Amino acid sequence: MIRRGFQVAARLGHHGTLPGGPYILPTFSPASAFGSSMDSLFSRFCQEKTDLKNYALPNASWCPGMLNLYHEFLEKTKAYGWIRLPSFKSNRNHIQGLELPLVLTVSSDKSDCHIFTRCIETEGQGYEYVIFFHPSKKKSVCLFQPGPYLEGPPGFAHGGSLAAMIDETFSKTAYLAGEGLFTLNLNIRFKNLICVGSLAVLNVDVEKVEDQKLYTSCVAQSTDQQTVYAKASGTFLQLQLEEDSSQY
Amino acid sequence: MIRRGFQVAARLGHHGTLPGGPYILPTFSPASAFGSSMDSLFSRFCQEKTDLKNYALPNASWCPGMLNLYHEFLEKTKAYGWIRLPSFKSNRNHIQGLELPLVLTVSSDKSDCHIFTRCIETEGQGYEYVIFFHPSKKKSVCLFQPGPYLEGPPGFAHGGSLAAMIDETFSKTAYLAGEGLFTLNLNIRFKNLICVGSLAVLNVDVEKVEDQKLYTSCVAQSTDQQTVYAKASGTFLQLQLEEDSSQY
Repeated sequence: MIRRGFQVAARLGHHGTLPGGPYILPTFSPASAFGSSMDSLFSRFCQEKTDLKNYALPNASWCPGMLNLYHEFLEKTKAYGWIRLPSFKSNRNHIQGLELPLVLTVSSDKSDCHIFTRCIETEGQGYEYVIFFHPSKKKSVCLFQPGPYLEGPPGFAHGGSLAAMIDETFSKTAYLAGEGLFTLNLNIRFKNLICVGSLAVLNVDVEKVEDQKLYTSCVAQSTDQQTVYAKASGTFLQLQLEEDSSQY
Repeated sequence: MIRRGFQVAARLGHHGTLPGGPYILPTFSPASAFGSSMDSLFSRFCQEKTDLKNYALPNASWCPGMLNLYHEFLEKTKAYGWIRLPSFKSNRNHIQGLELPLVLTVSSDKSDCHIFTRCIETEGQGYEYVIFFHPSKKKSVCLFQPGPYLEGPPGFAHGGSLAAMIDETFSKTAYLAGEGLFTLNLNIRFKNLICVGSLAVLNVDVEKVEDQKLYTSCVAQSTDQQTVYAKASGTFLQLQLEEDSSQY
């Protein structure tokens, strides 16, 4: 059903690109998500008591600029409504007890899976990032330091690594802001290259929620805001996860 | 100069989004690229005699469908004008003796860098792919098998991993078809999820070359063409690399 919903929404978003229709989206009720409220979604996502490794904590590879901004935002979590999002090895850890119905048909070894943006374990080599989220403002800030394994043009981050970082920040924001589950569209305009090992700050906003879709925007720039690396927009489909039947 | 050209072109493509202008693009002459012809670019890119590891060769992790298509296209390289592109650890290996002027200011340890789409060394865990390119048709086919370290939704490839694979296939195609160097824009419409470990076939075309820009398109779909995973378009800026001054 979710698969159908995904296809249908994709089609609705692009009249004429695929045959068929008209389609009717399944109804969506944020108030009844998971049979409770958005609080439940948050508490599952941001487990406080867990043995899981949280990859969004500072390590020796973080540049001074990233550490400084991290501590600035950490201060804002105390009084200004910002939340530091934990980042576990797999999305399974963030949606414990829930799943996509489609997963039932997938036979991959769950223990061997990594969320893409945490695919490289060695500190500093791959993705170093942390996302802060503001629920009432529906915005996020991602501090992103691409390592040397994310290279594209010699010495610079691959455009695809930034695209993935934007998609991941969009995804987490859309999910927590309104159960935006699937990326329907991602549009990125690249302006300048990011040096490997330097810091990019991604400012993400939910622009609107309409017709079961969340519309997001992103500006990725240097810490001093003098260099824009990219501007992006995204569209996410709102869908509710289901209880994980394998747990019963 | 290239940095300037990149910024300028980005601005030209998006009137009003950034202050300043009007700008004039530096002239571009394909015939004089590298002081020789496109043949030189090709021979640098596809070195036949090299000790470098070529990651685009079959390994035990490839699914039967990927192996079959690989051998089909390998046959086409003998008579139908297709070229199997090698894939080395870094783009530095593909542009030997050339570089972006900007790189001169980058102090990263070159030996420690990986092109993003070859960031995971263990066979089958990350990106498994091979690109075939047809110079006269200006098109490419990329066979892409995402491993479990490229996960997004449980059991499925992260949208960002597909975005990066599309960007990388676009990049190689744009570079070899007409010295398209920088991604200016990437737009992806996601239609269906790709199961981890299964095969996606990316069909890429250069749609047109105009005003120093290459316009590319991509359809990513299942082997039987019954499931479209994504449709994408890209814009690349044509720029010439410079001789690597550090070699003298």
